[in-house]
Amino acid sequence: MKTKRSLHLVAYLKTGATSTHPGGWRHPAADLHDVFAPSRYEHIARVLEDARFDGCFYADTLGIPDVYKNSFDTYVEHGGQLSYLDPMMVLPIMANVTRHLGLGATLSTTFHQPYHLARSLASLDHLSGGRACWNIVTSTTDFEAMNFGMASLPAPETRYDRGDEMVEACCALWDCWQPDALVLDKAAGFFAHPDKVSRANYAGRYIRTRGPMTMPRSPQGRPVFMQAGSSDRGREFAARWAEVIFCTMQTAADARAFYDDVKSRMDKYGRDPAECQVCPSISVVIGETESIAIEKADYLDSLINTDLSLATTSAMIGADLSRAETGDDIDAARGHQGHGGIVDRIRQRMRDENLTFAEAARKKRSMLVGTPEMIADHMESMFAAGACDGFVLQGNVTPLMFEEFGRMVVPELQRRGIFRRDYASTTMRGNLRS
Amino acid sequence: MKTKRSLHLVAYLKTGATSTHPGGWRHPAADLHDVFAPSRYEHIARVLEDARFDGCFYADTLGIPDVYKNSFDTYVEHGGQLSYLDPMMVLPIMANVTRHLGLGATLSTTFHQPYHLARSLASLDHLSGGRACWNIVTSTTDFEAMNFGMASLPAPETRYDRGDEMVEACCALWDCWQPDALVLDKAAGFFAHPDKVSRANYAGRYIRTRGPMTMPRSPQGRPVFMQAGSSDRGREFAARWAEVIFCTMQTAADARAFYDDVKSRMDKYGRDPAECQVCPSISVVIGETESIAIEKADYLDSLINTDLSLATTSAMIGADLSRAETGDDIDAARGHQGHGGIVDRIRQRMRDENLTFAEAARKKRSMLVGTPEMIADHMESMFAAGACDGFVLQGNVTPLMFEEFGRMVVPELQRRGIFRRDYASTTMRGNLRS
Repeated sequence: MKTKRSLHLVAYLKTGATSTHPGGWRHPAADLHDVFAPSRYEHIARVLEDARFDGCFYADTLGIPDVYKNSFDTYVEHGGQLSYLDPMMVLPIMANVTRHLGLGATLSTTFHQPYHLARSLASLDHLSGGRACWNIVTSTTDFEAMNFGMASLPAPETRYDRGDEMVEACCALWDCWQPDALVLDKAAGFFAHPDKVSRANYAGRYIRTRGPMTMPRSPQGRPVFMQAGSSDRGREFAARWAEVIFCTMQTAADARAFYDDVKSRMDKYGRDPAECQVCPSISVVIGETESIAIEKADYLDSLINTDLSLATTSAMIGADLSRAETGDDIDAARGHQGHGGIVDRIRQRMRDENLTFAEAARKKRSMLVGTPEMIADHMESMFAAGACDGFVLQGNVTPLMFEEFGRMVVPELQRRGIFRRDYASTTMRGNLRS
Repeated sequence: MKTKRSLHLVAYLKTGATSTHPGGWRHPAADLHDVFAPSRYEHIARVLEDARFDGCFYADTLGIPDVYKNSFDTYVEHGGQLSYLDPMMVLPIMANVTRHLGLGATLSTTFHQPYHLARSLASLDHLSGGRACWNIVTSTTDFEAMNFGMASLPAPETRYDRGDEMVEACCALWDCWQPDALVLDKAAGFFAHPDKVSRANYAGRYIRTRGPMTMPRSPQGRPVFMQAGSSDRGREFAARWAEVIFCTMQTAADARAFYDDVKSRMDKYGRDPAECQVCPSISVVIGETESIAIEKADYLDSLINTDLSLATTSAMIGADLSRAETGDDIDAARGHQGHGGIVDRIRQRMRDENLTFAEAARKKRSMLVGTPEMIADHMESMFAAGACDGFVLQGNVTPLMFEEFGRMVVPELQRRGIFRRDYASTTMRGNLRS
């Protein structure tokens, strides 16, 4: 008998030394000696699996942001959040030391070809026994487009149209081999059923691929789909495809409104709302007492370089905060760039706290700061209010924050009966749905 | 004091169960139970490192060949040589259990973008501490092109021109970070020198990329370049870029002519002939006595399905051997497809053995069959005659052939003083040049 819903936890990671928190890498507990070593990634995988996380995913940007002051210098000098290694090269190493943890990569529908993308994710799904996850992004910056030979980023609608085609094409490739196609009969010389392998034959407006892939169907058939769009078009995309939605709403009311909206859109795609887990992002600082936690958070924030903080927000909204100072400036400056959801959140802060756009954009991002009980209280209240199905935990000091969360907050969630004590499945999808 | 040149050994691998030998997967010693498991790839990496191989590389084809009878059925049904997993997803796992073995992937200059390609190879170079290798191919079949949205393959000259641009663009990306750019000074908040990071700014006819990559310079700076072209244009490409050349010449005279030709072309690119190791491919069957080896080889060849053998050769030459029967037919049927070197080898067999093209194409590929001493004799005589710098060992029964070669032939080569007893370097380039 199932008594209570269990919430879901996904870790937001970056390869390399830097994290979402601009000062995170400077913390004494931030490991820097092993940034390029497989052992770093083995360790974080074990920490997350010990803590019974559903999975993790690597955020990714295909270039160094130069939105701020038209230069990448601030990011390089002060340690902006970058992927210092290709996440797809790190995930197989993590697969090899875990048995349950979901393993996600951010892969762009704008800059990839479906054959490469479908093949690498299916390979990860095979190597991990069914734990691959794709954080589907359409990419949001011109500096990434220029690394792929484009003059600038296509318009958002075009990107989402191509995104739909990319996912459709990948699904067609993943479906080429029927689950029972492989035979491997040495005596008969019968390797696989040719009548159980078919072409993908996908021909869209932007994407074409014929197939079949060289690879038998992977354990999950297709990876778990994760997505983070917050615009109307982004929500439609999520309602159609997403199994995990990563969102940035921070108040219970906003999160609830988003939750209800995106779940209500699923029906038209023939999907049950239970097939998608909506997970707002949180970042935590945990103390034995509240005052310890506050001091720890203040210390961490003291490590922030103001320039880097502005450069980070500039990259996320797609407009240079060293020049654009008002909300109107921002829209003109962005072009096709930036995360609309983050611009919306800054505008909301303007209204709520009566600030100018520039002031609101400069405010530090909020973290959950307190004792394990206080953090569990916040998570439980959001969850109980129907504002979410779980959380995306964004690293600030890595691996410390995940270690502390696993040791202190997870047991509290388990005591309250709202988080698993053991995995129900060896696939990521199986754990997300149980 | 260095007394003798040491030859170089590189293993030719495929992800999955099948191998170059069409009957290989049917052999009782061929492991099939763990085709998708990381442990399979850990094992082969350890076997090759124990045997002191310079490195290994995964051959790759981006689709299932359908050249023969215009269908992929034969390949699927009888177990044609395919990559059942993306090699790039397997190599990090191999990097993690070895310290010296070079790790190579075949990546196409026709179907990739330089940013993805440069990033994944540099990541592998970081994770392995300087052991990444790129087997550079321009791809040779229409069925691959169709998986990437093209109607057919571009002409060879165009492919090589784009190939040159791809390597140039990747080198520009790999050179963005100077070796001493990374600082990681927590106290000062100084992550890296912005003046030691620059853009790639590559703009060619086919390829454009701006950079910089998000990644500090990797231990080798750039991966070891491997290449296998045999046409005039392919040899120029090799002379300009290749550090390992994988060739198919089987007689000492042919190998010697190829060796002298390609080495003589290097000067115009400012390269020393010692910077490139020419390695003909061999496949071996080893017995305690010659008659045991012959019986083992006969048994292995008895596992070949004739249709699959023809389908394999059809895919390699890019023409359907179920229809094209003469050498003239072949050239008309190939279009832009196929390995010219393999067609040349079949034509040579026509002349040498007075066969029709169809008969010559149907002949089994030759393996070296004999005692460890006999195999070492052949290798030593080729090496001593200046016909090669080493060998690419193509798997037939995997992992058995590599295990036997390591246990039986390698010690014999070491006794003769023509192969290392221990590695000189922890980078692949370091071992290739020592």
